[in-house]
Amino acid sequence: MSKSPTLRLPTGMRDFAPRAAASRRRIAETLLEVFERWGFARVITPAFEYEETLALGLGGAGRAAAIRFVEPSSGQVVALRPDITPQIARLIATRFRDEPGAVRLSYEGTVVRLERAGKGQRELIQAGVELAGVGSPAGDVEVIALGVAALRAAGLPRPTIDLGHLGLAREVMEALRLPEAIVAEARRRIAKRDATGLEELLREARGPAAAVRFAALLPELAGAPAVLARAAKSAPTPGIKRALADLRAIVDAVEARGVDARLHVELGEVRGFDYYTGVRFQAFVPGAPDAVLAGGRYDDLLARYGRPSPAVGFAIDVEAAAGALEVGAQGDGAPARDELANGAGGVLVTGPLAAASEAADELRRRGKRAVAELSGLTGGALDEYARRWGFTEVVRAGARSVSNAKNGKTKTGRK
Amino acid sequence: MSKSPTLRLPTGMRDFAPRAAASRRRIAETLLEVFERWGFARVITPAFEYEETLALGLGGAGRAAAIRFVEPSSGQVVALRPDITPQIARLIATRFRDEPGAVRLSYEGTVVRLERAGKGQRELIQAGVELAGVGSPAGDVEVIALGVAALRAAGLPRPTIDLGHLGLAREVMEALRLPEAIVAEARRRIAKRDATGLEELLREARGPAAAVRFAALLPELAGAPAVLARAAKSAPTPGIKRALADLRAIVDAVEARGVDARLHVELGEVRGFDYYTGVRFQAFVPGAPDAVLAGGRYDDLLARYGRPSPAVGFAIDVEAAAGALEVGAQGDGAPARDELANGAGGVLVTGPLAAASEAADELRRRGKRAVAELSGLTGGALDEYARRWGFTEVVRAGARSVSNAKNGKTKTGRK
Repeated sequence: MSKSPTLRLPTGMRDFAPRAAASRRRIAETLLEVFERWGFARVITPAFEYEETLALGLGGAGRAAAIRFVEPSSGQVVALRPDITPQIARLIATRFRDEPGAVRLSYEGTVVRLERAGKGQRELIQAGVELAGVGSPAGDVEVIALGVAALRAAGLPRPTIDLGHLGLAREVMEALRLPEAIVAEARRRIAKRDATGLEELLREARGPAAAVRFAALLPELAGAPAVLARAAKSAPTPGIKRALADLRAIVDAVEARGVDARLHVELGEVRGFDYYTGVRFQAFVPGAPDAVLAGGRYDDLLARYGRPSPAVGFAIDVEAAAGALEVGAQGDGAPARDELANGAGGVLVTGPLAAASEAADELRRRGKRAVAELSGLTGGALDEYARRWGFTEVVRAGARSVSNAKNGKTKTGRK
Repeated sequence: MSKSPTLRLPTGMRDFAPRAAASRRRIAETLLEVFERWGFARVITPAFEYEETLALGLGGAGRAAAIRFVEPSSGQVVALRPDITPQIARLIATRFRDEPGAVRLSYEGTVVRLERAGKGQRELIQAGVELAGVGSPAGDVEVIALGVAALRAAGLPRPTIDLGHLGLAREVMEALRLPEAIVAEARRRIAKRDATGLEELLREARGPAAAVRFAALLPELAGAPAVLARAAKSAPTPGIKRALADLRAIVDAVEARGVDARLHVELGEVRGFDYYTGVRFQAFVPGAPDAVLAGGRYDDLLARYGRPSPAVGFAIDVEAAAGALEVGAQGDGAPARDELANGAGGVLVTGPLAAASEAADELRRRGKRAVAELSGLTGGALDEYARRWGFTEVVRAGARSVSNAKNGKTKTGRK
């Protein structure tokens, strides 16, 4: 009777059953509440927009990650957002164009990113913030402190914050004056901390010797914030000195403020979205292989939308956070079997229809989760149903309660 | 310096500034909480899937509303979901295939629908429920009662529920045996309550006279539930009698249960998504021109995904609900000017950076919304900033508080 059609989902798309959906919802709502308490007002941006508008902010790598298609009504190319930050930049540059002072906004939503090498796409749930109008390290500190507070409120363990500085990395690369052909490879070797391989490439550098010496150190300039002092000693240019001083100020302020995280400085951090210009940070927690939070400073982004303003922000990967919480709860990475029970508990009411409905209504009025059993299950099958869907009580609404309905009393047999 | 690029959004796409976003978020969260209390567990489904999978459930009209594009990695056609119900049906038919008893699921998310005649698209935020496994009117009653409870909890005024029955309408059309060419026009005239125009078409009917007489009545069979008794008297077929009896049972149970809504029966209701098979209902409230809630019974939908099961559900249009609330709050339909203030209130703390940050942290620990002013605004500009962003207090953190930080006391001058 029921021949089953093929019901696969596209690569990277997935459904979340009640248990998984509840944990993602809980996390997202907690994050938004913390963002709100810190004064970051939530905004909502659309799922797709014109590709050329998004592309202004995305830059090359982000643009390659966007799924494009033709808008049926106009024939113009639109793109599903692979990242919400450029949308917030556009929003600030248009609707909030003339607002003086700092602009603090937050968001939560789905983004879709193409994977490299034609491997399909991934749909991610992100919750994040953007702080525009504050160019000093004070802005970076506020956002980092908020990120840590939000992760902790969501129940994640104390994170490690990797701190880098893309302005510094960019300045070093420029000072080296490497032949164009090997710039990308040099970045890769720095990122991989391949000191030997890097040294080999640095022989081709035509920049000053001080810059080459500093670049050769980059793979080692990773670890406790003390590496900043080491780096400062051999900083070859004013720009690099300034970047290091900014990082120093951020580290000091984060520590003075008692932010609940371990700081790890990584001066060889040379990757990330094209729009980052200054400090870049990522948060890692036990149980999540990838960063649960990534962000940084992008002081040029708003100018691309016609309203120059410094800005800093981050996005939290809700799925990565949920994964870390599940590993923490179970002690291993095994997927949960009880995918139907979302932890809300509640009462399953059986018995004659009118009485059961009435009893369930009454329980809900008292704030309880309640369901009237309507499908005719009984005995062991009923108990098994209650167990699988996570009800903590099964009660029978008395047949009498129908006649008692008028005076508002319902005998349900519940405690 | 800042030449402004074109930053239009595609038709039907929009941003929500803090005030509007907060009200949508509040509504969506309230609806999900009520769904949860009624035992409808939230699930999350992807933004797009293979068009042929979605199309199974969508039928013709729904399919025409879907934006399609080619998945870059596979070359297969995918579609942005125009409706979440077919996704839930797929989910139940696959992941929950072997679950006995009733399945109660809820969702909240964005759908994108193409408008007719190439007029672009609309992005909607929907929150809804699906109840599978209950074929009796008890299921319809539970879902209608839940819909009304959810709308009321979100702050909407007492709704009017329009009740129709697509099974009845379909049965009537079949019994008439109209020439194929005029079936669509007959439906249109019924829907428009064009009794004269309908009568003209009914002359072409080759079905029994009783069916023709009943069809001619359809445009008038609208109003208080009493029309059901009138209709029952001239019901020409067992199927139509059954549909009327079901509607009667639903009306009686909804009234007995004290559901906080006015019922309006509309037997000429012949439109709606292809998947509806039985009762169809819509909720209307003052201030919203369109239905804020639409739903019904679709007993064939799950079978299309290989797991036959009766089902009933609804979706609430969060934007329509927000619109009705705003009209209610303002007494007119004018858009709010204070789009930056989201109603959360809070404290704006000025003063030396470290002291202001510390004072803000302390306020947040006490559960207050707080922001340290970092952008250097002062005087009237500061007050104006606080007003526009909806802060209810501006306080100055004392310069002394820096030295007091160690013993945990911060003088912030707040009351």
